[in-house]
Amino acid sequence: MNSISYKNRGMFLEKLLNDTNTYYESIDKAVIYKKPTPIKVLEVSYPTRKATVINKAVYEKISTLDYNGIYRGKYIEFDAKECKNKTSFPLSNIKEHQLNHIRRILKHGGIAFIILFMNNEFYLIDGTYLINYVDSGIKKSIDFCTIKENCYTIKEGYVPRLDYLKVVDKLYFGGNKNEENKIK
Amino acid sequence: MNSISYKNRGMFLEKLLNDTNTYYESIDKAVIYKKPTPIKVLEVSYPTRKATVINKAVYEKISTLDYNGIYRGKYIEFDAKECKNKTSFPLSNIKEHQLNHIRRILKHGGIAFIILFMNNEFYLIDGTYLINYVDSGIKKSIDFCTIKENCYTIKEGYVPRLDYLKVVDKLYFGGNKNEENKIK
Repeated sequence: MNSISYKNRGMFLEKLLNDTNTYYESIDKAVIYKKPTPIKVLEVSYPTRKATVINKAVYEKISTLDYNGIYRGKYIEFDAKECKNKTSFPLSNIKEHQLNHIRRILKHGGIAFIILFMNNEFYLIDGTYLINYVDSGIKKSIDFCTIKENCYTIKEGYVPRLDYLKVVDKLYFGGNKNEENKIK
Repeated sequence: MNSISYKNRGMFLEKLLNDTNTYYESIDKAVIYKKPTPIKVLEVSYPTRKATVINKAVYEKISTLDYNGIYRGKYIEFDAKECKNKTSFPLSNIKEHQLNHIRRILKHGGIAFIILFMNNEFYLIDGTYLINYVDSGIKKSIDFCTIKENCYTIKEGYVPRLDYLKVVDKLYFGGNKNEENKIK
């Protein structure tokens, strides 16, 4: 995969996930969507009776995670994060209301996680692990070696582009962590 | 409830549901949100390095249902519809891609339904019932008397404003239809 350009990776990660979700839906494997980014509309006009044009608006922060849906009968919700820092993932990337949202999802029996792109690899950070780490209050970031040790690699491919449900299968439906998914 | 004005009921129904969902979340009963309306951004500007202002955009049609979330460990998704016609609910109110989305949700083990406001009452139309009705191809609308006969009334109240999970409890968690929920 070294031939892939990793520039503008933020949008690229979103594209990978959207393509993957479209593929999952096409083969009837899961129904997972990216939520639209909420906007605050400040000014509209009605050029015709049926058309509404937004003339001024600003983006708003989403208080939940970006993607949600259903897989194998379970509620699933996750966020995609890109980390440019090579040595650690700053927890400031995940807002307090997002952490609280993860807590609620877990409490209600859902699956919640983060897909992290860091050092040209994709990792799945389990929601429960993340919450425990944050609540322990030890550090304001997660060292890359801790991620490699405790999170799961998602392999990039062609169809689908980022088969994260393979990791979800093993992690949430097949019992415990599978060593095969851990990096090296 | 006769004192409540039923003008602009479209937004009022959305407000009722948002208030209800906020209440459900506050008592830790469920995590259900309205998805933001997707927009297509046509023009943006950057007045400062950190600010993005949308100068032109249009609303897009949502291809899923408006509300989704998790309740009692189950994936739940629904849409709110208002019907001004007093004798029947035209099925043209539910788009083909929304019907397909309902089919997918049901197939994956989720709960899907429509909350309908019609003749000053709120009804829950079960997703499976709706799909079967549509697939039967008998009519392009559902007569009001058929709705009264086969759907479930949701009572309007104060806290929460529209306790639809009470009907969900009985319909999806307590077994069969409960006569108490059927109108008159």
